[in-house]
Amino acid sequence: MTAAWRHGPVAVVGSGLIGTSIGLALRRQGADVYLQDVDPAKATLAAELGAGRDVDPPAEIGLVVVAVPPDELAGEILRGLARWPASVVTDVGSVKLAPLRALTGSGYDLARYVGGHPIAGSERSGPRAGAAGLFESRPWAVVPHEASTPAAVRVVDALVLACGARIVRTSAEEHDTAVARTSHLPYVMAVLTAASLSGATPLQSALAGSGFADTTRVADSDPALWSQILRRNAEPVRQLLVDVAADINELLSALTPGAQTRGGNGVLPVLQRGVAGRRAIYPAGDQGHHLDPG
Amino acid sequence: MTAAWRHGPVAVVGSGLIGTSIGLALRRQGADVYLQDVDPAKATLAAELGAGRDVDPPAEIGLVVVAVPPDELAGEILRGLARWPASVVTDVGSVKLAPLRALTGSGYDLARYVGGHPIAGSERSGPRAGAAGLFESRPWAVVPHEASTPAAVRVVDALVLACGARIVRTSAEEHDTAVARTSHLPYVMAVLTAASLSGATPLQSALAGSGFADTTRVADSDPALWSQILRRNAEPVRQLLVDVAADINELLSALTPGAQTRGGNGVLPVLQRGVAGRRAIYPAGDQGHHLDPG
Repeated sequence: MTAAWRHGPVAVVGSGLIGTSIGLALRRQGADVYLQDVDPAKATLAAELGAGRDVDPPAEIGLVVVAVPPDELAGEILRGLARWPASVVTDVGSVKLAPLRALTGSGYDLARYVGGHPIAGSERSGPRAGAAGLFESRPWAVVPHEASTPAAVRVVDALVLACGARIVRTSAEEHDTAVARTSHLPYVMAVLTAASLSGATPLQSALAGSGFADTTRVADSDPALWSQILRRNAEPVRQLLVDVAADINELLSALTPGAQTRGGNGVLPVLQRGVAGRRAIYPAGDQGHHLDPG
Repeated sequence: MTAAWRHGPVAVVGSGLIGTSIGLALRRQGADVYLQDVDPAKATLAAELGAGRDVDPPAEIGLVVVAVPPDELAGEILRGLARWPASVVTDVGSVKLAPLRALTGSGYDLARYVGGHPIAGSERSGPRAGAAGLFESRPWAVVPHEASTPAAVRVVDALVLACGARIVRTSAEEHDTAVARTSHLPYVMAVLTAASLSGATPLQSALAGSGFADTTRVADSDPALWSQILRRNAEPVRQLLVDVAADINELLSALTPGAQTRGGNGVLPVLQRGVAGRRAIYPAGDQGHHLDPG
């Protein structure tokens, strides 16, 4: 259950998938939502879909939600803080530390800024992919920094609840390390798996099952957007890829001709670590399951 | 639509997920199915679930379906050929060349043997995971070798159709190269992704979305079974992993501090190859899709 929105008009900067979905969710709570986009046609489409109005926002705004690609985040957050001097400002970026450093480096007073990151989305993009229920029961990282005021945090918490999501409080650094594991590495691995099929024969296409479909699904996401995400969270992702490369070397030597007869545990220890990783996230072992690994 | 089964009694050797599902599907077509397993309790359970009878098969059998782990395949196929001298014998193994080589090496007449591989399954195992509809509309590789008779191929084709699956005709070598890409590599990549979460913090668990869930789902599959599959298809899998390692090196150098300012295309080319791989399998770009890459 969510209460009616009572934190004033909301400006959504960026009318893509996430911005549009937030507008749709807030409109359900009766919020007064103003949609913007560098591409005015996108804001208009989002408005037509019911996510708010594509007119200039009033001078007094309660909350600015910055929903733009990672490279634009810091700039749009600063613009929001400057344009609406009494408003809380949050964002929905997949990376939190790099923009926070850029903001801190600007010397601007960041008391009204609180970072955010809804763990929801789609490999599709644009307003048409938006949905009011996109965030329902999903985690949404709320990421205050040391200068964020408690009042600003409360408004961002209210946004999360208004969208039906679950508040996960964390720091920018912890957030980035976590999503490197839970989101950025899975994306990269899906890409590498899909890439191996880029020259697929008709037979290979015919034999692809739902194991391939599921494992590679997120590889359909926008490469330009993800390129920014990975560059802005480069170090945690790089460390994970170094570990993956070591695991691959272990598998390669276990699969080398003759390795089986020379003894050793073969590939089994790596495979068992995979099961352990699933159990760490899904202790009951019954989530994310359906038939057919292909 | 499938016709009533008219190829005589069927012996299913191995009453796990696949054997039980085949029994259930054939029973729907009125086939007389005999279930076996090294663990008699499994055959009994499969029989209780309606997949056939757990009694000794008659001397005259029309088809033997060998549904045992890769390491047991060749032995059970030979046993089937010897025990039922007029019966066609097929199997459901995920790897085709290694068992075929073992069979050929045995010197036994293989005219009545035709390999098979339904591209369906589950990360769960055992009779209880079985389902009559498991193979519905799925590809099922039918893999004759040079000595297989046309009559034997027809019986195995009939099995595939009776299970509601689609016949994909191929050779053992082509099959193994294809599934290395479409199934074995995706499994390994899911394992490596999941393994990176084996020491997950509560925050990391809280932030795992459906991107992680989907990308790692098949990592839940039985490591002992997969260990056999990978060893028996070691060379194609090894070659793919060498390519993945090269892609990872490309990403690592693009993500190295300073790489961005030194120019270069960064991670984008690899990410775009991922999209190309998805398009190679799903030209319309609308399969395997649902919300939330996490």
